[in-house]
Amino acid sequence: MKVFVINCGSSSLKYQLFDMKNESVIARGIVDRIGINESYVQIETEKGKYKIVKEMPNHSVAIQSVLDLLTDRKHGCIENMSQINAVGHRVVHSGEDFNTSVKIDKSVLKIIASNVELAPLHMPPNIAGIESCLKSIPHAPAVAVFDTSFHSSIPQYAYMYALPYDDYKNYKIRKYGFHGTSHQYVSQQARQIFKKDGDFKLIVCHLGNGASISAVKNDKCVDTSMGFTPLDGLIMGTRSGSIDAAILEYLSKKTGMSLTQVVDYLNKKSGVLGISGISSDFRDLEQASKDGDERAKLAIAMFVYRVKTFIGAYSASMGGLDMVVFTAGVGENSSLIREYICYDMEYLGIDFDKSKNTSAIRGSIAEISSDKSRVKVHIIPTNEELVIARETLKFYK
Amino acid sequence: MKVFVINCGSSSLKYQLFDMKNESVIARGIVDRIGINESYVQIETEKGKYKIVKEMPNHSVAIQSVLDLLTDRKHGCIENMSQINAVGHRVVHSGEDFNTSVKIDKSVLKIIASNVELAPLHMPPNIAGIESCLKSIPHAPAVAVFDTSFHSSIPQYAYMYALPYDDYKNYKIRKYGFHGTSHQYVSQQARQIFKKDGDFKLIVCHLGNGASISAVKNDKCVDTSMGFTPLDGLIMGTRSGSIDAAILEYLSKKTGMSLTQVVDYLNKKSGVLGISGISSDFRDLEQASKDGDERAKLAIAMFVYRVKTFIGAYSASMGGLDMVVFTAGVGENSSLIREYICYDMEYLGIDFDKSKNTSAIRGSIAEISSDKSRVKVHIIPTNEELVIARETLKFYK
Repeated sequence: MKVFVINCGSSSLKYQLFDMKNESVIARGIVDRIGINESYVQIETEKGKYKIVKEMPNHSVAIQSVLDLLTDRKHGCIENMSQINAVGHRVVHSGEDFNTSVKIDKSVLKIIASNVELAPLHMPPNIAGIESCLKSIPHAPAVAVFDTSFHSSIPQYAYMYALPYDDYKNYKIRKYGFHGTSHQYVSQQARQIFKKDGDFKLIVCHLGNGASISAVKNDKCVDTSMGFTPLDGLIMGTRSGSIDAAILEYLSKKTGMSLTQVVDYLNKKSGVLGISGISSDFRDLEQASKDGDERAKLAIAMFVYRVKTFIGAYSASMGGLDMVVFTAGVGENSSLIREYICYDMEYLGIDFDKSKNTSAIRGSIAEISSDKSRVKVHIIPTNEELVIARETLKFYK
Repeated sequence: MKVFVINCGSSSLKYQLFDMKNESVIARGIVDRIGINESYVQIETEKGKYKIVKEMPNHSVAIQSVLDLLTDRKHGCIENMSQINAVGHRVVHSGEDFNTSVKIDKSVLKIIASNVELAPLHMPPNIAGIESCLKSIPHAPAVAVFDTSFHSSIPQYAYMYALPYDDYKNYKIRKYGFHGTSHQYVSQQARQIFKKDGDFKLIVCHLGNGASISAVKNDKCVDTSMGFTPLDGLIMGTRSGSIDAAILEYLSKKTGMSLTQVVDYLNKKSGVLGISGISSDFRDLEQASKDGDERAKLAIAMFVYRVKTFIGAYSASMGGLDMVVFTAGVGENSSLIREYICYDMEYLGIDFDKSKNTSAIRGSIAEISSDKSRVKVHIIPTNEELVIARETLKFYK
């Protein structure tokens, strides 16, 4: 039983082919520079890696190239298309229309298309990917797994903004949250680690180039730091996270940037990149900080501080805390950032174990709080593709 | 020793005359509708209240009217101007130029004027008030007491936004915080109540039509919820508080509002007024909520939830919590809002006492946590004018 998982971005496409018998990945790869010059497709199987440079003007051609490679005698891993039993698509936005994954048919596709304006950069390639697969693999059920749906359990008092109510009714303005598949996957893993009865109050810190935190109470998300868009909340690689909205007007007046340009500036030129002036990559910032760069130190301190305040805030959301989990690039790999975040958090019941933290093995689940810590702290590597494959499998009968 | 305290708004002016021997108020009043039709000046002394309707085209005329009334044989309380020993002005913004109150001379006034663009609605009347008093009461030292200066101790990692660093250097974009005199006054009162040695970790909830929260560690403010402007942070009467900045672009596209109009909309049409569609006044909302209005209930729930998350966040900022204080209109007078905020906060060490809460006497300091509560909760009535008078007195030698 094989599930093909696709994540279509604006000019790239990531894919994995799972054998769901044992949840193993039998092929994975990327198509990059779709619609640009020098586009290429890559595949990695047990036979090794292979790459073809060829013109791919759109997502339809890109997906056909992937399928050709998967069934290629020399470099592929399946004999023909019929071996793909189902296709799982990452779709960035469900609006308020879906609170779980959904099997895609014409009417579902129409609803998905109606939410394009909520994520105008991401939804068109998502939809192009779905349409291409429906054409090329018509026999396989196609399932949409939304980046937002894990957050659909957030209560209204937490997802509403204090705008006139009609802006919610008429324009769908509310908190949606993103990284849902990651928060969901990690929460499920955390639940298996947490064996006690009673309430389970979990905070998941998904810290990557994009970063978000979720409060997960008894396996349901009750709040998350990203908002109407992925701009809000934590400080990120190039995104400002939360800022005083009045700054946009002031900045526009000062610089002459239009509103659209200011929002683009907040998304692409800000964050730790903007503060440090060095890099959006935390590995570069840690190095610069070690070398004494004051702005790299400031960028890290600001990032850490905001994570700490969200951990505090979400403890209040849930009326307490049992476990904190770190995941994604920075969360899984930076022992320094984890240590800074957990510093001086004893008041919550966190007793951090520095030595466990630095000796955690890359890519593995690890406990990094002490044995006597009332609140447990763990690293749990995320796996968004596997969640998509599992969700997709549910619809294969 | 008499100190005259003035708070000039755009079309109104509030004043109090203190006798600093015993910090008693010997006169207080307001001038309203300055520069509009039917402007009037009011005075209240031990002789009673008195009001005159007269044309007041500007702040200079308004201040002269107040001084005339103060020295009026029938309605006033002093014999002549020379009895006013010093004048304390509330000034909304210090920029980064002053971290304490300051005696006003020409060079100080020039620096204050250089920060007008940081608060373009509030600073011009503040400056007009200062200039008028310097003319009318030239013998009395004039002192500027800033709404921002109590927050000048906030560390850089907390006051910086994650914008390109030059936006801070070139345009002074950072968190400033407001309501500083209130947070300062209440913190000083709280310190007197808190008698233990060691760290003192205090959260002050200034909840009025404008609302802000401060984290005050060992008498120094370490974070506050308002930001570059008073729009940020908590949900307020008509202000949205924190929202995803990308909403501004979306809302502008949807409605055709300009950026300036959107920011105005967030300041004046949003908050609990926008959500409820009923009122910006919490008394109205509580009544509507009791009568079953769902949107009034939602507005209250949203307001409360955000306060709770800030209490959580600022506990993390300080690495713990010893006391929470409620002040200002809603904080002092709404037992319901206080109860909702403190509900399910036992994890922080708060043991709320409902009966003490409902029986607290209006206008008085009251403890509303139980005797065994590790974290104490108090109501402390604020008195911004008294802080201004005390600060002013420091410069009278």
